[in-house]
Amino acid sequence: MASDFGRFLHVSIFGESHGRAIGVVLDNLPAGEELDEAALRAFLNRRKPQPEGGLSTKRREDDVPIFLSGVLEGKTTGSPLSAVIENKDARSLDYEALRDVPRPSHADYAAYKKWNGNADMRGGGHFSGRLTAPLCIAGGIAKQILARRGIHIGAHLSSVAGIQDERFNLLPTQELFEHIAEKSFPVIDDACGERMQQAIRAAAEEGDSVGGTIECVAVGLPAGLGSPMFEGVENRLAAALFGIPAVRGIEFGDGFAAAGQYGSEHNDPFIINAEGGVATKKNSAGGINGGITNGMPLVVSVAIKPTPSIGKPQRSVSLSRGEETELRIQGRHDPCVAHRAVPVVEAVCALVILDLYLEEYGNGHK
Amino acid sequence: MASDFGRFLHVSIFGESHGRAIGVVLDNLPAGEELDEAALRAFLNRRKPQPEGGLSTKRREDDVPIFLSGVLEGKTTGSPLSAVIENKDARSLDYEALRDVPRPSHADYAAYKKWNGNADMRGGGHFSGRLTAPLCIAGGIAKQILARRGIHIGAHLSSVAGIQDERFNLLPTQELFEHIAEKSFPVIDDACGERMQQAIRAAAEEGDSVGGTIECVAVGLPAGLGSPMFEGVENRLAAALFGIPAVRGIEFGDGFAAAGQYGSEHNDPFIINAEGGVATKKNSAGGINGGITNGMPLVVSVAIKPTPSIGKPQRSVSLSRGEETELRIQGRHDPCVAHRAVPVVEAVCALVILDLYLEEYGNGHK
Amino acid sequence: MASDFGRFLHVSIFGESHGRAIGVVLDNLPAGEELDEAALRAFLNRRKPQPEGGLSTKRREDDVPIFLSGVLEGKTTGSPLSAVIENKDARSLDYEALRDVPRPSHADYAAYKKWNGNADMRGGGHFSGRLTAPLCIAGGIAKQILARRGIHIGAHLSSVAGIQDERFNLLPTQELFEHIAEKSFPVIDDACGERMQQAIRAAAEEGDSVGGTIECVAVGLPAGLGSPMFEGVENRLAAALFGIPAVRGIEFGDGFAAAGQYGSEHNDPFIINAEGGVATKKNSAGGINGGITNGMPLVVSVAIKPTPSIGKPQRSVSLSRGEETELRIQGRHDPCVAHRAVPVVEAVCALVILDLYLEEYGNGHK
Amino acid sequence: MASDFGRFLHVSIFGESHGRAIGVVLDNLPAGEELDEAALRAFLNRRKPQPEGGLSTKRREDDVPIFLSGVLEGKTTGSPLSAVIENKDARSLDYEALRDVPRPSHADYAAYKKWNGNADMRGGGHFSGRLTAPLCIAGGIAKQILARRGIHIGAHLSSVAGIQDERFNLLPTQELFEHIAEKSFPVIDDACGERMQQAIRAAAEEGDSVGGTIECVAVGLPAGLGSPMFEGVENRLAAALFGIPAVRGIEFGDGFAAAGQYGSEHNDPFIINAEGGVATKKNSAGGINGGITNGMPLVVSVAIKPTPSIGKPQRSVSLSRGEETELRIQGRHDPCVAHRAVPVVEAVCALVILDLYLEEYGNGHK
Repeated sequence: MASDFGRFLHVSIFGESHGRAIGVVLDNLPAGEELDEAALRAFLNRRKPQPEGGLSTKRREDDVPIFLSGVLEGKTTGSPLSAVIENKDARSLDYEALRDVPRPSHADYAAYKKWNGNADMRGGGHFSGRLTAPLCIAGGIAKQILARRGIHIGAHLSSVAGIQDERFNLLPTQELFEHIAEKSFPVIDDACGERMQQAIRAAAEEGDSVGGTIECVAVGLPAGLGSPMFEGVENRLAAALFGIPAVRGIEFGDGFAAAGQYGSEHNDPFIINAEGGVATKKNSAGGINGGITNGMPLVVSVAIKPTPSIGKPQRSVSLSRGEETELRIQGRHDPCVAHRAVPVVEAVCALVILDLYLEEYGNGHK
Repeated sequence: MASDFGRFLHVSIFGESHGRAIGVVLDNLPAGEELDEAALRAFLNRRKPQPEGGLSTKRREDDVPIFLSGVLEGKTTGSPLSAVIENKDARSLDYEALRDVPRPSHADYAAYKKWNGNADMRGGGHFSGRLTAPLCIAGGIAKQILARRGIHIGAHLSSVAGIQDERFNLLPTQELFEHIAEKSFPVIDDACGERMQQAIRAAAEEGDSVGGTIECVAVGLPAGLGSPMFEGVENRLAAALFGIPAVRGIEFGDGFAAAGQYGSEHNDPFIINAEGGVATKKNSAGGINGGITNGMPLVVSVAIKPTPSIGKPQRSVSLSRGEETELRIQGRHDPCVAHRAVPVVEAVCALVILDLYLEEYGNGHK
Repeated sequence: MASDFGRFLHVSIFGESHGRAIGVVLDNLPAGEELDEAALRAFLNRRKPQPEGGLSTKRREDDVPIFLSGVLEGKTTGSPLSAVIENKDARSLDYEALRDVPRPSHADYAAYKKWNGNADMRGGGHFSGRLTAPLCIAGGIAKQILARRGIHIGAHLSSVAGIQDERFNLLPTQELFEHIAEKSFPVIDDACGERMQQAIRAAAEEGDSVGGTIECVAVGLPAGLGSPMFEGVENRLAAALFGIPAVRGIEFGDGFAAAGQYGSEHNDPFIINAEGGVATKKNSAGGINGGITNGMPLVVSVAIKPTPSIGKPQRSVSLSRGEETELRIQGRHDPCVAHRAVPVVEAVCALVILDLYLEEYGNGHK
Repeated sequence: MASDFGRFLHVSIFGESHGRAIGVVLDNLPAGEELDEAALRAFLNRRKPQPEGGLSTKRREDDVPIFLSGVLEGKTTGSPLSAVIENKDARSLDYEALRDVPRPSHADYAAYKKWNGNADMRGGGHFSGRLTAPLCIAGGIAKQILARRGIHIGAHLSSVAGIQDERFNLLPTQELFEHIAEKSFPVIDDACGERMQQAIRAAAEEGDSVGGTIECVAVGLPAGLGSPMFEGVENRLAAALFGIPAVRGIEFGDGFAAAGQYGSEHNDPFIINAEGGVATKKNSAGGINGGITNGMPLVVSVAIKPTPSIGKPQRSVSLSRGEETELRIQGRHDPCVAHRAVPVVEAVCALVILDLYLEEYGNGHK
């Protein structure tokens, strides 16, 4: 394992779905940063299950962070910030039967092999999507700190079950990000979002699930963050983003589509923009050249697989008996997690960008 | 910058395209491992430019590694292995004019901003694809060490300019990997490879370039390598693979396609295989569940953008004059780098997998 | 900041003296290790203040760890283990006056400069010796895991205020370690310990404080742990041990005395021991050659400075007025922390040795 | 192994005493820093053997660094700087006989156990003091960069064989550092140095060796570098300094002497200095409180053991025969390495301080 990341800004996540609490330690935050708890709570609510519309699990999660350290009188102190969320609504009985029969495309079997059967896999254990809640606490704080430096991060659900939302335009604004963040379903085009929701509900009715993609953009980045080779912006974002459960792919700018383009089509011509600065006419590079920001918006997309927990019967094996068997997963599941993952992707991007920023500009007293 | 990676096995790359030498330091290798220099040379030849067929730059690279340390009487000693390649055929004059006018979608401008004009960008400098040669020295050694542990890694060019090769089947063999490695153009289906080469030559004639995708597979992996969250197999592979110049996207198993699938379609049912072991019936997960290997082949694909250096005139800006201008790139360029990147992807995968393996099984004397 | 350490086994400490809670996250522990909570409680009690004898602060600390994650049914699960201790007996009023006038040889002024006055310095904040409690939780667990692998760690107070205890002999036993651990004052020679306690009480009566040294030994180590140069046993132990507040020096084997010896005096002749194995006749090297264990007991000593909080009036400055002033520190202080630091040194050594062990032998399922 | 260190500034050392070359890679250096090669050469000369006075080995080392990358037109480029020194005067025959009989207090036996006999131990291999030459290349560059930021580092031989030099005074100057650096024997008091040299020559005549201590000071440091707990100035300096062969102990400020002091004696009263700033009246803390610089000179001392290679016969064992035997070490040895280690200690301190500095103030373009 290592459930931590960050070169300068260290993020460490702990907890299991059905354990006593989940939490995060965030080390090397700048000191003296105001913590807007109401804004943080609003951010956390964006990843909460929304059982009303039939889009999410019926498990109730309140996700109220309790700050244990690192904050005094509403400001960061410079020492490690830690926060926990207590687990309350955990019905472990639902999962007891699964111990012997691993759920397809879950971590059950791999974890069983790795930890010789000792892992706490109740409710998915440490692999549960629930662990993204402390990640959002950390990321929500990072977003506030970045905003004070003119850097804003937004994301939307760019597709569900093959239904595509609009893409962000060349220079999206902070206002657009906030507008999407206030929506109950985070898309640019609401008509499109309506069709996505129908697809999710239809899958749920069949005892099935669907996946989706998320497009995330950061604006206001200075040119020059990141590095060539192994500490580039892509390397570090990818290393962290694959920590979100169910992510199967990551691409920057035109991503996989670039593989089918001509150089003359893919290359971004440099221009002098309206403010007299250097910019590019389009942004196939997603704001990154050679691992380094070029001052254009950073654009990253992630693919979220369909939720592996489905109601339909599946084929699996009994580990104790060494034979194949049928599995029916009981309990409460999300027919789609992609929409709930939108703020999580923002959170991870915010943490990595803040890490890159602090590395370049220092964390220092002046 | 940091041009190094690895938790346990440290890989550090140095050099610039037109500097004195390029090289690699590889720390924490197991001791007593035989180094088959002939096999390593053959591996390095796979990424060499092949000017004959019109598929590559005319720059001649001999890429003979000189071992400075860490090897004695043909075996690794346990101390840091270092190797350098001297740069010989560097014609810096070709690039002198580019200092003021950054090449679109190259690192020129980003590097200029990051290092205040001090970067050595002759021939792409430290950003050059030439830096993948020392990476292949390290990776070629890792491949030999893994093979002794029953782990084999193979890759092919899965598409160029939209032309698709076959995909690897569910359980590809070491023999297939070797068969592809011996081809001058690394595809499974040679008819398909022929069409790809035509597309590359056609682009070259237009002064243009094309991109492609590479599929890489590792077989023989034990279940249980990797970790949940941020040190998972995907996280670490992605963090290293994005260090290869021109990579724009990375996906595991079904990757982005998974976002459009149903759970019942994507999930991999567990089965008892012919040897009586636990396996999966198909491999949409690419051999990884929850960041941990499940014993099935690891499948990763990367998208390579078209070479940014093209002969066609392009729009750019003069940094000194602050105005737009036209740029014509002179010099020798690859109309496609995707086919040459195939062994590089193998090399990086080998290094990361060896790192994960050593972490799990130890590097120890027994 | 970074309040974390460890290459393979990650230890992250958080909390402030007068905050809500202090705690630790321990990532990459082997799975399936039994957690003997009674033994852990006994270990933690060794660093508790003992106000009865006049040797410690009157602050009461119960230090009951609450495990939030990573433990199930008394065994480690493989996912991050986290534990917190709630802060109860914190009287912040005592410290309120100190904000403007930094205490000599405390971190007050340095922290003020580093975090622009934002640090939470109540009770010493994150710099407080109280943070060694979560360190002992982690270290106590590491000690249990090491003991199962035949590695035992013991320590004693080797001097206080210049009064010297005996040194450990060449091959100390686990029984001796346990015998010392059960004493209320951790020395080998109790008569000597009595004189040390008198010195501490005498200093306390004067409103003054004293320092001391601690000798720590690990037995049962295999030869071959550690590395030359920067990841040697000394490097990693020192990097962690200087994390204990008040440590001013660290030495291995004969340490500083070696600087005054002849080579013929310092060198440890190799012998064949009673079991037919290779050993050394004496142990001036403290069990380490070239950064690597040689199979002899590892011997490390640390110097603990006198507690900086003293009752006597001291000279300091008013930061707001920019002038010198007299300071009288109120509140409860330890006249000596060296005796309480004995288990802390054991804890840190256990964590580093377990880290080195796992790196060499792997953390893997077999 | 890991022969690399540094959080932000990565230093990686490679090579063996009798291999083809030794070298260093230095990643994350600021760009645009002038490299004064003459000054660097002068710095490297300070650690060269001086066979004339009978104080050093007769092995001739020219130690001319060849820069392979990271420097262009005399300035750092921002990409990894690498430099190698070719090995020329290596007489491996001298050491061939030692393979079976490990030298007491050398790494021979520990390395044999760790790497199963595969280590290249000719001339001490990777453990050789010769590896401090590339360390001095890196450190010499760091010294030049720090000097431009007003930070100066100096060191002297504070004792040899028990003969004590003067200590640095409270506020040593850059001029004093340069004065000592120009001496052929690096002490403050030359009369004292004369007696030290006599002691070294006397030991040499007996076929024996002596140790010593080195005091190193850094002036001009801003307050606020470093961190509490595990990333403090002491932690990071110690972690790197123990990478110098033969270091047995490290202390800061009053160090081990502090363990025998009263708090009222050890504490450093704050004062307003002549410039109106906050300072301390004395510097028992060695410029560090709570792991963080307080603006006073940083003071660190290291203990160097006597050279383990001595001419006198010693007891050892034959590994192949499993029996005790007598060993007579042939070849050329230093009767003392402490005086040659003075610039090495400066080099390591410079690298760690630059790392801390870049972390606090950033490496960024402005």
